[in-house]
Amino acid sequence: MTKTSVIGSEEALIQGFLAPLAAGAPGAFGLNDDCAVLAPVEGQEFVLKTDAVAAGVHFLPHDPPAGIAWKALAVNVSDLVAKGATPVGYLMSLAFPEAPSRHWMQEFADGLAAAQRHFDMTLLGGDTDRRDGPLSITIAAIGRIPRGRMVRRATARPGDVLLVSGTLGDAALGLFVHQGRKMARLVWKLDKAGLDFLEQRYLRPEPRLALVTHLLEHASAAMDISDGLVKDLGRMCRASGVGARVREIDVPCSPPARKVIDQLEGWRQVALTGGDDYEVLAAVPPGEAEKFVGAAARAGIILTPIGEVVAGSGVAVLAADGSPLVIDDQGYDHFSEGPGHRRRRRRGR
Amino acid sequence: MTKTSVIGSEEALIQGFLAPLAAGAPGAFGLNDDCAVLAPVEGQEFVLKTDAVAAGVHFLPHDPPAGIAWKALAVNVSDLVAKGATPVGYLMSLAFPEAPSRHWMQEFADGLAAAQRHFDMTLLGGDTDRRDGPLSITIAAIGRIPRGRMVRRATARPGDVLLVSGTLGDAALGLFVHQGRKMARLVWKLDKAGLDFLEQRYLRPEPRLALVTHLLEHASAAMDISDGLVKDLGRMCRASGVGARVREIDVPCSPPARKVIDQLEGWRQVALTGGDDYEVLAAVPPGEAEKFVGAAARAGIILTPIGEVVAGSGVAVLAADGSPLVIDDQGYDHFSEGPGHRRRRRRGR
Repeated sequence: MTKTSVIGSEEALIQGFLAPLAAGAPGAFGLNDDCAVLAPVEGQEFVLKTDAVAAGVHFLPHDPPAGIAWKALAVNVSDLVAKGATPVGYLMSLAFPEAPSRHWMQEFADGLAAAQRHFDMTLLGGDTDRRDGPLSITIAAIGRIPRGRMVRRATARPGDVLLVSGTLGDAALGLFVHQGRKMARLVWKLDKAGLDFLEQRYLRPEPRLALVTHLLEHASAAMDISDGLVKDLGRMCRASGVGARVREIDVPCSPPARKVIDQLEGWRQVALTGGDDYEVLAAVPPGEAEKFVGAAARAGIILTPIGEVVAGSGVAVLAADGSPLVIDDQGYDHFSEGPGHRRRRRRGR
Repeated sequence: MTKTSVIGSEEALIQGFLAPLAAGAPGAFGLNDDCAVLAPVEGQEFVLKTDAVAAGVHFLPHDPPAGIAWKALAVNVSDLVAKGATPVGYLMSLAFPEAPSRHWMQEFADGLAAAQRHFDMTLLGGDTDRRDGPLSITIAAIGRIPRGRMVRRATARPGDVLLVSGTLGDAALGLFVHQGRKMARLVWKLDKAGLDFLEQRYLRPEPRLALVTHLLEHASAAMDISDGLVKDLGRMCRASGVGARVREIDVPCSPPARKVIDQLEGWRQVALTGGDDYEVLAAVPPGEAEKFVGAAARAGIILTPIGEVVAGSGVAVLAADGSPLVIDDQGYDHFSEGPGHRRRRRRGR
């Protein structure tokens, strides 16, 4: 079998590469039936999310297949986790412009295997298609949660402290590194470690699984940040009927991102508007914030207070001197941007 | 608002066109959260299926949007129903090559509304994307079923009677009508009613919802026929470790399909291998067949015995004189066919 040997039938693709990913789920029937069964657990309900990634939009066509697999699953798991749900399984719909090689498919399947092991979930079923257009991977992810406990987007309350996990802006910078490392090195004067860090933050989002129980315990409202802090916080505010105040200086940045932001005016707002971070944004009652931050820290995740929920509407970002910042670009939208949109990161609803 | 006015943002698309489709499901939160909640019912479990349809493969780019919507949902519901499951809800991932017009989107949403009303299910969540390639609609459909009762593909037993619902081959002929009605009329000499019938069978598959309870009561095994009878029956046989014998003369055809088959050698096997029928194939113990057929008839669905499950392996199709037929084309496969594949119908795993 050569490296470029192409997979000759859907049957070969399913039984040779995908069925092993379903081995852990009795309800997947080894991908040897038309549907899967999802059995509920007493006192729990399911949380559902679907999100697609496509070549040229969410990854580059020649990216390593294992990384594409990771990202396809991670962007969905990120949503589940931010709602306080524990991953269970997923359906996957693959659209190939041409039949993949065995080599590509093996690396992709290995990447999925690693990702689903990391997230503790199993492939339950899927669909494979060949059609024109970019390679795309559509995942429908399923999590479980104690009944009635999903952490909503619409339940932030005035007075709540706003917290974010990790650091913001890295992935938007990482996409730039990924598209042209030499240019990034020259312009940003970062060392290899700094460039690698940013690129990995773009290529390999890390859903904050360890936050799940603490979100359920402490948060009024939460969501993942995928289209940029200001845009996603704006969504939380609109859904909750509240406003928010964010202190720019408190928005957490990694050291390499900080270096870029401090050097170049054009990237100054990247932590506020850059997408693809897949960090958690949570609104937490003031009395809970300290406990939440402490519990997260013990789980290895840094949470940073960035502002407060206020009565009213809209997101105000304040500079160090207290004056409101004008936000140049609220984040990505598929339908309102021009032909340059392909260079930008994006995410679903 | 003109007919060609384009939708300017994802928010406008979701809140203006999709949120009304989720109004019936409390767990969809008006599409105003990042995830949906799916609450189980005591004694039941869920059945899951994902299948995608794309322009140029499963429908033509200029087909009426309401029809595209119907088909996208129906091909998934067909799988649920054939397993004995009752539709509950669905997630939908839309990929647009360009932002749709309001007019197109309204017709699409109206078509979805009609389809989900017919199938008694609700939109639970989704994702919208703009990317190169054909318009594609990926549905993940969810049904419910009494615990442990999903009608499997792998449980057909020697001696079972094989039954199919409705008539076969219509949709493959209907695709030909849809691609060039004038040619179909000239070659087949069908009247308008005949051509319309076949075309509708391609455009508007009708999942056999009224069979659900009777499948649960009587069937050993079942699946929907989407890639052609011989191919799908072959899958049932392989999964069950059995063989099958089919009498060609008993395979039910509609009058217009019969007329084409009797006229033209090239279409002789269309009822055996034509795809996109979305009828139910069931294996039923001999003692149950009469009751099953009777119950289905009272529900308005004709079931036709076409052969038997036998020990061994493989599907044998017998001509009227008892001699085995050679099947020219076992049905569609995405990965093993050449560039002409786009003219053929197809289906997922």
